[in-house]
Amino acid sequence: MTREELTEQIFRKKTFLCVGLDTDIKKIPQHLLHWDDPIFEFNKAIIDATADYCVAYKPNIAFYECDGVKGWISLEKTIRYLKKYYPDHLIIADAKRGDIGNTSAMYARCFFGEMDVDALTVAPYMGEDSVTPFLSYESKWVILLALTSNKGSHDFQFTTDNEGQRLFEKVIKTSQQWGNADNMMYVVGATQGRMFEDIRKVAPDHFLLVPGIGAQGGSLEEVCQYGMTDDCGLLVNSSRAIIYANSGTDFYVTAGENACLLSCEMGKMLNKYSRMKDDPSYCYI
Amino acid sequence: MTREELTEQIFRKKTFLCVGLDTDIKKIPQHLLHWDDPIFEFNKAIIDATADYCVAYKPNIAFYECDGVKGWISLEKTIRYLKKYYPDHLIIADAKRGDIGNTSAMYARCFFGEMDVDALTVAPYMGEDSVTPFLSYESKWVILLALTSNKGSHDFQFTTDNEGQRLFEKVIKTSQQWGNADNMMYVVGATQGRMFEDIRKVAPDHFLLVPGIGAQGGSLEEVCQYGMTDDCGLLVNSSRAIIYANSGTDFYVTAGENACLLSCEMGKMLNKYSRMKDDPSYCYI
Repeated sequence: MTREELTEQIFRKKTFLCVGLDTDIKKIPQHLLHWDDPIFEFNKAIIDATADYCVAYKPNIAFYECDGVKGWISLEKTIRYLKKYYPDHLIIADAKRGDIGNTSAMYARCFFGEMDVDALTVAPYMGEDSVTPFLSYESKWVILLALTSNKGSHDFQFTTDNEGQRLFEKVIKTSQQWGNADNMMYVVGATQGRMFEDIRKVAPDHFLLVPGIGAQGGSLEEVCQYGMTDDCGLLVNSSRAIIYANSGTDFYVTAGENACLLSCEMGKMLNKYSRMKDDPSYCYI
Repeated sequence: MTREELTEQIFRKKTFLCVGLDTDIKKIPQHLLHWDDPIFEFNKAIIDATADYCVAYKPNIAFYECDGVKGWISLEKTIRYLKKYYPDHLIIADAKRGDIGNTSAMYARCFFGEMDVDALTVAPYMGEDSVTPFLSYESKWVILLALTSNKGSHDFQFTTDNEGQRLFEKVIKTSQQWGNADNMMYVVGATQGRMFEDIRKVAPDHFLLVPGIGAQGGSLEEVCQYGMTDDCGLLVNSSRAIIYANSGTDFYVTAGENACLLSCEMGKMLNKYSRMKDDPSYCYI
C-alpha cells in the first residue's frame, strides 16, 4: 500500500485507528473454545465489527507464534481473511525482527513475500544491513522502533552521545539514509507525550505508528497535538481496550462500539490538527 | 541446561562449537527435494554427522519462518529430534526477539514453554521489561545482542555517551542488573577481534555466543586469545562453512569433517587459553 492510498483512506474514513490483534487463547470468550480455530473465529468477529472504524490491523506475531504450528495457521488464515474481505486495510505484522543481512532477507521473504502483509515492525539495534533487506519490496513498509511505549524504553533509547543526540533521534536520522517517508515509518509510544515534538524535528514527514493509548495510559490529544502532520502522519494503535472490552458472547459488539468511539475522537483530532482544520471540504460529520 | 552442564560438556568433548542450522531450501542438496520434508531430512543428516564435534545447535528461526506453517513444522521436528537423540546438546533458538513485557512473555512461552529450547537470542533495544520475562524460566538462557558481527553493528552499537561508555558496553552493564552469568550470555561477533578485550572488562564471567567465524571472516585464535575464560566462556558458531560445504549426496560427510576440523582447532584453543593450560589432567589428545 502506498502512502497516498493510506492517506486517502484516513481522510475518507476520518480515522487513523489501527486495531491490534494481540489474540490470546487465555483471554478470548470461553464460548469460542468450541470452535476448531478459536483464535481465527475471534479475529474474524473483531475484524468484521471494527473494519469501518479503522484503517489498519496489527497482528502481534508473538501471540500466534506461542502456539507453534497451530498459531501460525491462525495467523495465515487471519491475513488471508483480511486480504480477501478488507483489501483496503493496511496489515502490519508486529514482529520486531532484525538480524544480519542474509537473515533479515529471509524474514522479509516470510512477511512480504509469502505472507504478503503491507508492513513489518523492525528493531534497529543491528543497523543498516539488518533493515535494508526489508526495503527492497515495492509498496511495503518498514516500521522501525524509535521510542517505544514501555518502561524499558528509558534503559537505552535516551542514551545521549557527545553531540547531545539521543539514541532514538540517531536511529531516526541515520535510518533516513536507508529509506524515506514512502517506505518507512517509526514506532513512537503514546506514553512519551511531549517527546512527539522532538520526534517531529527529526522526522517531520514520516508516518508514526503509535502504541500505548488505552491500557498503557497514553493521551490521544497529546499525541495529535505534537505529532500530527497536515496529512495526518499517525497510525494510533489500540489492542486490549478494543478486543478485550467484553468477554461475553457479544464481545464483538463492544469491540465495534469502542473502535467507533475512538475513531470519533480521531475524527475530531483530524479536524483540529490536520489539513482538515483549514479546509471546509474536509468538514467532519 | 545449567552452566555446569554446559561447561562439563565442553571439557569432556574438547570443543565449544555451535552448529548453526540456517537451513535454506534453495541451498540444500537437490536430491533431498524428493522427501516430504527436505529441511528436516537435511537437518537430521547434519546433526548426526556433527553431534560428536559440537556442544550446541542454533536453528536460525528466520529460515523456518520464511516457509510459514511448513517451516514451523520442520523446526518443531528438528527440535524434537535433537531433544530425543542428543539431549546433552544446548539448543539455541536464534530469533532475536524482544517486545513490551506482555508480548515478550508470549515469546518466552513459545520458545521456553512450548518448544522447550535451552536458550533464545534477544534484542536489547526495548530495555528491561522486554528481557526479564525470558529470565523467569529455570535453566534457560537469554542470549542478549551486545556487539554483533555485521557491518551495521557500527551504526548504533558504538554510540558513546557522556561518560565514554559505548552502547554495547551499556547494554552489558545494565543487563547485569536483570540476570547473571548463570542465565544470560551475550552475542559478540568474531569480526570484532580485539574488542573481546573490552568486552571481558565488563563481562569477565559471562558466556559469549560468537557468530562470524568462517563466511563472515572472524579469527578463532583472536576470539580465544581475548575472549576465553578459565572455564571457556565461549560458544563459537559456524553455519554456512559447515552445513553448505558440499552440495552433493554426501554433504553430511563434509559437514562432519569440517565440524571435526573446527572442533580440533577449538581443542587446541582450550589447551592454550582455558584452565586446561595449567592442568595436566585436561591434556588434549
